Amino acid sequence: MSLVRQFICCGFAIAISLPVTRAYSAADDLADVKAQVAKQHDESVKRLQDWIKQVSIAAEDRGYPEGADYMIQLLKDAGFQKAERIETEGKPGVFATFDAGAPKTVGLYFMYDVKQFDPKEWSSPPTAAAIVDKPGLGKIMIGRGAVNQKGPEASFLAALHAMKAAGRKLPVNFVFVAEGEEEIGSPHFGQVVHKPEIEQALKKCSGIFMPFASQDLSGMVTISLGAKGLIEVELTSNGEKWGRGPLQDIHSSNKARVDSPVWHLVQALNTLVTADGDPAIDGLTKNVRPLDAQEKAMIDSATQRLNEAEAKKSMGVKKWVKEIGWSEALQRMSDAPTVNIEGMIGGYTGPGGKTILPHQAIAKLDLRLVPNQTAADALAALKAHLAKRGFGDIDVNMTGGYDPTTTPADSPIIKAEEAVYKNHGIDPVMMPRLGGSWPGYVFTNPPLSLGAGHFGLGHGSGAHAPDEYYVIESANPKVASFDDAVMSYVEYLYQLAR
Amino acid sequence: MSLVRQFICCGFAIAISLPVTRAYSAADDLADVKAQVAKQHDESVKRLQDWIKQVSIAAEDRGYPEGADYMIQLLKDAGFQKAERIETEGKPGVFATFDAGAPKTVGLYFMYDVKQFDPKEWSSPPTAAAIVDKPGLGKIMIGRGAVNQKGPEASFLAALHAMKAAGRKLPVNFVFVAEGEEEIGSPHFGQVVHKPEIEQALKKCSGIFMPFASQDLSGMVTISLGAKGLIEVELTSNGEKWGRGPLQDIHSSNKARVDSPVWHLVQALNTLVTADGDPAIDGLTKNVRPLDAQEKAMIDSATQRLNEAEAKKSMGVKKWVKEIGWSEALQRMSDAPTVNIEGMIGGYTGPGGKTILPHQAIAKLDLRLVPNQTAADALAALKAHLAKRGFGDIDVNMTGGYDPTTTPADSPIIKAEEAVYKNHGIDPVMMPRLGGSWPGYVFTNPPLSLGAGHFGLGHGSGAHAPDEYYVIESANPKVASFDDAVMSYVEYLYQLAR
Repeated sequence: MSLVRQFICCGFAIAISLPVTRAYSAADDLADVKAQVAKQHDESVKRLQDWIKQVSIAAEDRGYPEGADYMIQLLKDAGFQKAERIETEGKPGVFATFDAGAPKTVGLYFMYDVKQFDPKEWSSPPTAAAIVDKPGLGKIMIGRGAVNQKGPEASFLAALHAMKAAGRKLPVNFVFVAEGEEEIGSPHFGQVVHKPEIEQALKKCSGIFMPFASQDLSGMVTISLGAKGLIEVELTSNGEKWGRGPLQDIHSSNKARVDSPVWHLVQALNTLVTADGDPAIDGLTKNVRPLDAQEKAMIDSATQRLNEAEAKKSMGVKKWVKEIGWSEALQRMSDAPTVNIEGMIGGYTGPGGKTILPHQAIAKLDLRLVPNQTAADALAALKAHLAKRGFGDIDVNMTGGYDPTTTPADSPIIKAEEAVYKNHGIDPVMMPRLGGSWPGYVFTNPPLSLGAGHFGLGHGSGAHAPDEYYVIESANPKVASFDDAVMSYVEYLYQLAR
Repeated sequence: MSLVRQFICCGFAIAISLPVTRAYSAADDLADVKAQVAKQHDESVKRLQDWIKQVSIAAEDRGYPEGADYMIQLLKDAGFQKAERIETEGKPGVFATFDAGAPKTVGLYFMYDVKQFDPKEWSSPPTAAAIVDKPGLGKIMIGRGAVNQKGPEASFLAALHAMKAAGRKLPVNFVFVAEGEEEIGSPHFGQVVHKPEIEQALKKCSGIFMPFASQDLSGMVTISLGAKGLIEVELTSNGEKWGRGPLQDIHSSNKARVDSPVWHLVQALNTLVTADGDPAIDGLTKNVRPLDAQEKAMIDSATQRLNEAEAKKSMGVKKWVKEIGWSEALQRMSDAPTVNIEGMIGGYTGPGGKTILPHQAIAKLDLRLVPNQTAADALAALKAHLAKRGFGDIDVNMTGGYDPTTTPADSPIIKAEEAVYKNHGIDPVMMPRLGGSWPGYVFTNPPLSLGAGHFGLGHGSGAHAPDEYYVIESANPKVASFDDAVMSYVEYLYQLAR
């Protein structure tokens, strides 16, 4: 769902820019690799373009198993000794290993699927991956998957190609897992990760990361030490299931004597939140763990460094909920469970009116979860809450869900991130948790209990939207170009090896 | 909006069939006219087919002013001495008069517009007006407007042609008004009716009626002495208007700190009805007049004669609201104000989920009104109710509305209806009020205060739906064919002249 990415687009990561005092210093020792990155630039960019042309969209059953096989070939080309398709009850995953004979092993998480798109909405064809000039940004590649997630992933693979060309051994070994259903909520990814052979391999890792274009437009980076969990549920109120109301839409004059499944849904929904919009589902928040002192300190620091006015402006928001201040607005992104309506629909929705009493109405909700809530508990609490209030007939269909994740600030994966960013003059804003969600719980939950995060210089935007892009040649010296993003992965591997 | 028609389709009029003891007795004295009706059959049917091919749809701005001009030509062909277009702020109406030198003058109300349609959903092209065999029904004409309202209207015009051909003078004079915006709620019809010249002409009438295919599938007829009023309103909760929530859809993780216009709408809606779904809007029902003894007696009679099981089955309804019985279910169709949700929409409504916090949500409501509520009072009560509860930002856009209507059981228009039906062996079920609505308040309200109703033998169905039809040759001897429907208007005029 590229929730991480979309989240960043929504302004959270907009930071007060700091002066860049020393750029790319770490690269000094990596001149040979850097030379190869530059030499291979065209080849690496073409590799990304070709990959974008291979489209896999789970919601449309498009590009399977070709997407997995393509991923496997990309891994083999980059030096992975072993790369194989892992069948699931849904779309296949990929498992691969790169044994460099190094003392440390690091986990890698990739997705090879992309979000649906409508070419009519794009200024450049979404599968052409054309490179175009964009004032203020520079040369950008426009294509579906450009930033979510093939661009950063291809940058990482380019790093391996460059190191090989420079005659360098990898400083760490890799255990790699990828999925082809990230955009539909990773429903079968657990079947990949928890396959005994794969779980065993992952247990050897010091942590796991996903390549990620982490810089915002100003070049700033925010590191989130985990993410909220999520359940997405579809609530359907239907006359037939209810045993009241009509079986099909009938004339609205009958409202005098026939119950309305739409009102039934409205009344059920109304019980789920307080007047302020906070969760009111029985027992939903009982296991919530408040932020600890270290986490609160991060919020205090972020309150100073992040720009409230910019965040509001980017979202078109004038006031926060309950007129809270910036500090609490930031804190709630880390520690507040939420109950949100993604959408709702029922009856006649065209121009003007139509005098019907609809037989059905649907609401799509997402509930964000914080430690120590779980997706399973949240679903059970929602169902019990509805049943207790006479809404047990309302169908609750969970379409996706993740537990929340937490990665300690001192985990190797995070310390290495900070080190690389600081080498580039970027003092990352640290946040206890991302307000968005990702399927990282398969790694951070037992039995693996791995630190998990996202890393990479570079910038892109438009995940899930038209004209998704990834910066190839940056017009802003504080924002990494493609080759600089590639180098950030090289540097990260050396940091991870320490 | 053909609410009358649609309402009949919904099962209300399904009656226990009575034995038909004597069919078409009144026609005995009208043998000369009947012969002309038969002789002109093909011509009359073709007139209807040609009219159906001339499509006027206000919502699509299609067929104006051609529809009005076509109506005028039809009237002139039928003998109206005067027929002219009446311009309004919307689509034109038509005003016409037929002076037969008779002592009594009767009002006629027509609509020349039809509901939108999608030809893909039809088994026969909606503008072709083809006549097809339908088992159980006979030969039917399928086309948009076939029953709502061109079929019955063309049957009435055929009656005038037949009387002229038989050399008969009309037994009554006519004052005719038609509109071309009935399907969008008659927003400008008052500008026609209350034009001084037209209002003066209408004041001379003993009542006003609309041609109508009043028979259900069993041949039974229900006469409603009025109709509920209606307001249709669109409630929009929008972040910009509210001053809270986002200006556009944003990532749903922001629910932690940003208000949701969708929740705002759900919470507002929830205040509008009781747990049982009855109106809870402050002051909405304060002027409601309970049914009187005569009206209650009609309900008692209808309770015996109408079939509850059939009514429930036709709507796919297992239980009435609040587990009420048949008598109360019938009574509420006449005396219960309602607040209904026609439809609602907001945010993402496609397959699966999409993690957004929508900036807007809309609900379309209709409120049915009974005497002595008014459309204006209902709108004002709704707005005040919302404002009082902190929902004053929610935009309330009234897209259409009518006051309730009442016509006394002893008004000439109704007595003549009963007489014709009884002559055909049909003992009509009398109801105090139709659960649906129509723009008859322009006639029944002061200053005109006319009795107003619908009359005609014949059967059709599918108003607003695909495959709308009107019976041409009936397979059921209890249901009138086209020519019999034409004759029912001839008989009605003689009854009205008494």
